[in-house]
Amino acid sequence: MTTRRVVAFGGGHGLSASLRALRHCAPELDLDITAVVTVGDDGGSSGRLRAERGGLPPGDLRQALVALAGDHPATRRSAGLFQHRFAAVPVGVPRSDGTDPGPAAGDDPGPDGPARHGAALRGTDGASAGGDGLAGHAVGNLVLCGLMELLGDPVAALEHAGAMLGAVGRVLPMSRQPVGIEARVRGADPAAPDEVRTVTGQHQVAVTTGRVESLRLTPSAPPACAEAIEAIRAADWLIFGPGSWYTSVLPHLLVPQLADAIVSTSARRLVTLNLAAEKETLGLSVADHLAALHWYLPELKVDLVLADAKAVGDPEPVERAAESLGARLVLAPVAVVDGTPRHDPAALGAALVPVLGADR
Amino acid sequence: MTTRRVVAFGGGHGLSASLRALRHCAPELDLDITAVVTVGDDGGSSGRLRAERGGLPPGDLRQALVALAGDHPATRRSAGLFQHRFAAVPVGVPRSDGTDPGPAAGDDPGPDGPARHGAALRGTDGASAGGDGLAGHAVGNLVLCGLMELLGDPVAALEHAGAMLGAVGRVLPMSRQPVGIEARVRGADPAAPDEVRTVTGQHQVAVTTGRVESLRLTPSAPPACAEAIEAIRAADWLIFGPGSWYTSVLPHLLVPQLADAIVSTSARRLVTLNLAAEKETLGLSVADHLAALHWYLPELKVDLVLADAKAVGDPEPVERAAESLGARLVLAPVAVVDGTPRHDPAALGAALVPVLGADR
Repeated sequence: MTTRRVVAFGGGHGLSASLRALRHCAPELDLDITAVVTVGDDGGSSGRLRAERGGLPPGDLRQALVALAGDHPATRRSAGLFQHRFAAVPVGVPRSDGTDPGPAAGDDPGPDGPARHGAALRGTDGASAGGDGLAGHAVGNLVLCGLMELLGDPVAALEHAGAMLGAVGRVLPMSRQPVGIEARVRGADPAAPDEVRTVTGQHQVAVTTGRVESLRLTPSAPPACAEAIEAIRAADWLIFGPGSWYTSVLPHLLVPQLADAIVSTSARRLVTLNLAAEKETLGLSVADHLAALHWYLPELKVDLVLADAKAVGDPEPVERAAESLGARLVLAPVAVVDGTPRHDPAALGAALVPVLGADR
Repeated sequence: MTTRRVVAFGGGHGLSASLRALRHCAPELDLDITAVVTVGDDGGSSGRLRAERGGLPPGDLRQALVALAGDHPATRRSAGLFQHRFAAVPVGVPRSDGTDPGPAAGDDPGPDGPARHGAALRGTDGASAGGDGLAGHAVGNLVLCGLMELLGDPVAALEHAGAMLGAVGRVLPMSRQPVGIEARVRGADPAAPDEVRTVTGQHQVAVTTGRVESLRLTPSAPPACAEAIEAIRAADWLIFGPGSWYTSVLPHLLVPQLADAIVSTSARRLVTLNLAAEKETLGLSVADHLAALHWYLPELKVDLVLADAKAVGDPEPVERAAESLGARLVLAPVAVVDGTPRHDPAALGAALVPVLGADR
């Protein structure tokens, strides 16, 4: 069986769904999986760690590692540990002020994720909650933060964390430096629907209900992770999405060295579309998602667009949008059967097998 | 080669030295090593975690795990991660208030330990330092805290952490419940040298320069860890010390179920004496250390007392104190050669080989 080298781009729950689906391609396909992860998060536990301690925001990197964690009971347990989130008020330890910790909020919004362990922060402003500085942090975020400090390099830290989890693939950051995300948004303030404002920070862009008119990174040309460029060059397939389009999928195309490698590699390219619009993409049609790829990287050619038939509805405009990228549209049932807009890893994997296994 | 089951009692740096020495007994001896660790710490990172989140103070458990970590480069790196301590001000991240973080202080005093990674807390009061709740915490303490929350049982948490480190032995808490340590101390206040006061908390007892006149646990009869009792019953050897006598060695004898098992097991018993007095034992002679064992557990019989000839000086009073416990004194050069009062693991191991390997 020929090994196929697959590079999956994204961040958060969308990338996690993509990686879990790729794992379902075995034993039919022998895949060598590399995840390339956005490093723009500034909300929740990741945002606090980034602001207080420097280094890359670890949350999306952790999610990708956990999605690739090995099947041995011990590595499953370590993956559970990485996901374990310290609660604001631990069981059996009453808070000295007697107050209620309030609703949970963290750095993992989105419908595709596993259930959260415990509660998290008071409020969503990313500040430490009271005197208990652990509240809201996932253990894996602290492990990654410690490894990056200890080893002095995020790629070495991710390699070691991957070994701790018996990961069946590799996780790389899109850049060794954290980036900022900024958007020009029309109607960010619902009271002024025609006004265009700059919205700063991945978290704020992800939750805006205005219409994103343009997106940029700060700095505008961060250096790409060299290992990610190598993986793109050596790949058989690149996979974009699913995920938060502006904050998890498009940022990769805005890193000039990554964009160059993505355009010039001999790898084939696949786009997996989302099942439902998120806040940041309200008002954006499925076809608009594909148009956005073209807008931010006009040289990008795509071989295949994979989408769920039910989520697409009338396929005709999506087919046309796919064709404008050079791609063929493949429809398959890839959502969970309970009707929530989440990809089913087994179903998505089953849809990927004939795609990734096909000869050119 | 017959397997010899050894149970080592202690906490902190002393136990760490004992465990590292036991590892040096291989390949001459096939040892099955169990560490039984005090759970009274209330200072530094461990004290903060215990106060804020409940559960066992993790620092001494972490030190024992790290001492037993496997020799593979990956497990050595994981051990380094467990020991990595988050600094108050990370490199490259200036504090917003521009102040100096002040001198380092943490939960690992004592001369026997490895060099500290990074800095630690401002002050020794166990409170969180400013807005950065990670400062002063060792990553391994947070991992253990997370595992205890996730798995709901400290023994299961320690078993998993041991597997993460490829540990060559087992680490158990003396009790599944954290305990308090209280001492009646004469001259705790240097201005009132004859006054006897109650000093509360392991950290305060460990740093008192008064004379400890009596010691007790709160609660006075904590339940012993059942797995520790089993290990004591099945053991060939029990090893007490080196370590902080009042806060790391004697507490085990104050847990009634452990004391019963220690007295009634068919295992032989060894006491390894300290190389220098610590603050809490200033004014206590080497012979007094042995007398203290008899005072707190009169039924305790000991087979061998191992000490460094230079540290002992005139052996005669120590020999007599050993004999009163039923023990023979063995003198060996077990200190590091640079003159600091630290056990050399290889030298201590070499001294242990003929002792532990001898037939009855």
